Amino acid sequence: MKRVVVIGGGTGSFVVLRGLKTHDVDLAAIVSMADDGGSTGILRDELGVLPPGDVRQCLVALSDSGRLMRSLMNYRFENGSLGGHSFGNILLSALEKVTGSFEKAVEEVGKILNIKGKVIPVTMNPVRLNMVLANGKLLKGECEILLCQETLVGFKTIYLEPFPKADAHAIDEIMNADMIVFGPGGLYTSLIPNLLVEGVSKAIRDSKAKKVFVMNLMNKRAQTPGFKASDYLREIKRFMGKDVFDYIILNDQKPAKDLLEKYEAESEFIVNDLKDHRVVQADLLDNSDPNYSKSDVIAHTRALIRHDAKKLAAVIMRIVDGI
Amino acid sequence: MKRVVVIGGGTGSFVVLRGLKTHDVDLAAIVSMADDGGSTGILRDELGVLPPGDVRQCLVALSDSGRLMRSLMNYRFENGSLGGHSFGNILLSALEKVTGSFEKAVEEVGKILNIKGKVIPVTMNPVRLNMVLANGKLLKGECEILLCQETLVGFKTIYLEPFPKADAHAIDEIMNADMIVFGPGGLYTSLIPNLLVEGVSKAIRDSKAKKVFVMNLMNKRAQTPGFKASDYLREIKRFMGKDVFDYIILNDQKPAKDLLEKYEAESEFIVNDLKDHRVVQADLLDNSDPNYSKSDVIAHTRALIRHDAKKLAAVIMRIVDGI
Repeated sequence: MKRVVVIGGGTGSFVVLRGLKTHDVDLAAIVSMADDGGSTGILRDELGVLPPGDVRQCLVALSDSGRLMRSLMNYRFENGSLGGHSFGNILLSALEKVTGSFEKAVEEVGKILNIKGKVIPVTMNPVRLNMVLANGKLLKGECEILLCQETLVGFKTIYLEPFPKADAHAIDEIMNADMIVFGPGGLYTSLIPNLLVEGVSKAIRDSKAKKVFVMNLMNKRAQTPGFKASDYLREIKRFMGKDVFDYIILNDQKPAKDLLEKYEAESEFIVNDLKDHRVVQADLLDNSDPNYSKSDVIAHTRALIRHDAKKLAAVIMRIVDGI
Repeated sequence: MKRVVVIGGGTGSFVVLRGLKTHDVDLAAIVSMADDGGSTGILRDELGVLPPGDVRQCLVALSDSGRLMRSLMNYRFENGSLGGHSFGNILLSALEKVTGSFEKAVEEVGKILNIKGKVIPVTMNPVRLNMVLANGKLLKGECEILLCQETLVGFKTIYLEPFPKADAHAIDEIMNADMIVFGPGGLYTSLIPNLLVEGVSKAIRDSKAKKVFVMNLMNKRAQTPGFKASDYLREIKRFMGKDVFDYIILNDQKPAKDLLEKYEAESEFIVNDLKDHRVVQADLLDNSDPNYSKSDVIAHTRALIRHDAKKLAAVIMRIVDGI
């Protein structure tokens, strides 16, 4: 069975993993640990735990348990002191406290959810993602970067603090993979934070795996304004040290005009300027009703224009089968 | 296999259930739903859920899952917005929200914990335990009753509001039991609240089961000041409508003097004034270190003078085997 390693954050990796789960591959998700917003941020600040949110989404994506367990994991309390927390985040944090180890907590939730594959935090060190803007302003934490209105000025540097070591299992998975899928996900907030962990870029460069980049559908205006496909590759190369990708998967269908207009204040469709033999184009749009089954696909509620898990997995599997 | 039904609250029933779990009996716990203090009270107020605390303790007592799951269920968050909440309470409340049913939530947690037996809330109606003191003061809720310094004046009446119907499964279990174990537990706050639910007292009176009362070890000075064993029986008879007990299990060992002195401000050892053929006396004291394995035996951390689960179960099983 081919070993496929998916590298990213929570929302983007959720779609890739959910799609690939139904295929005959050996899956591992390597997850960014830079999240510090929302429920995850509160748990980090108040309990001193590692960020559970992105890991939770990957665990749910790989879960083979019933619908009830998946809904429970993604259930978000609406009122009172628990308001805003997702149950799965609380579970991971409680297990981290009880076992004294986030790794053990992830493993136990994996058992409870009967996951197919592995979920591996890219690092077990507690880190913050910092960004120094071109105007000298220091943004502390992923959440601050996401909320900042000034990122359009560009940035000088982005780094994790303190500089973390990669988890040994993550490096092992990368080195022994047949395929590495990088993305989709927020470029600076979910994808590149993995490359800022010591040893990860080198392992990806050195790995004999075929390397696939799944391009996002939309630019977030505040983070990647006007970025074309080539801009994504250039930025990743900057942190990876090399253009490593053997395939670049791109959506070739334009979303419905009314959807695009609805979100044009904050996001814009990414233009493909690549004319490369590596480009694999296909219709990757999810056209299903986004209001359907909300609790199960919480990763989707953040974006109405999103990848279709089945379509994306089918394209990835064509490449896997060709290896 | 003999059917044993244990009726009470959380802390007292925990000891009985944990002891009986290792024996060859068919166990059901019927649990008071009057709790509204601490983590349970906050969840009730903020989320509008049914009280999870006592049910959680009974589920953990009957759990056949590993130590980790039991520790997780009893884990109490120490800081921040989750501070004071036990994880198990949060789990039950989240499942109640996701499934829309407390009954279903209890069933699901029972599966997760691989429980031996059943845990049945005495009623599925949301209720408050109210007490009208002899001086006319109305105490609203179990927590207020427990904290009130004026209960020594005595009370006129105690009732659940709104007047609840018993859960049909609870009545079934009582009617089909071979033995009913009532207590130990707070007389007015954990035991009698079960009898205030419509249909429960009648079912216990009508059931052909042998009925056993497990006497508490200590009086809480604010609730049962100077109560002797006969006072407990008199008060229960008042709400049960009849003295139903075939056996009364009493501890005959006095706790260590230093322990008694440590707690004499709030509690006192119960004097046995019963000279009845129904009385079964034995050494029932738990002499183990109360600081050992705190997270696993959270029920114990509330009292340093407590029943030993094994000793108590051995006495109950002698009666069961004689039926």
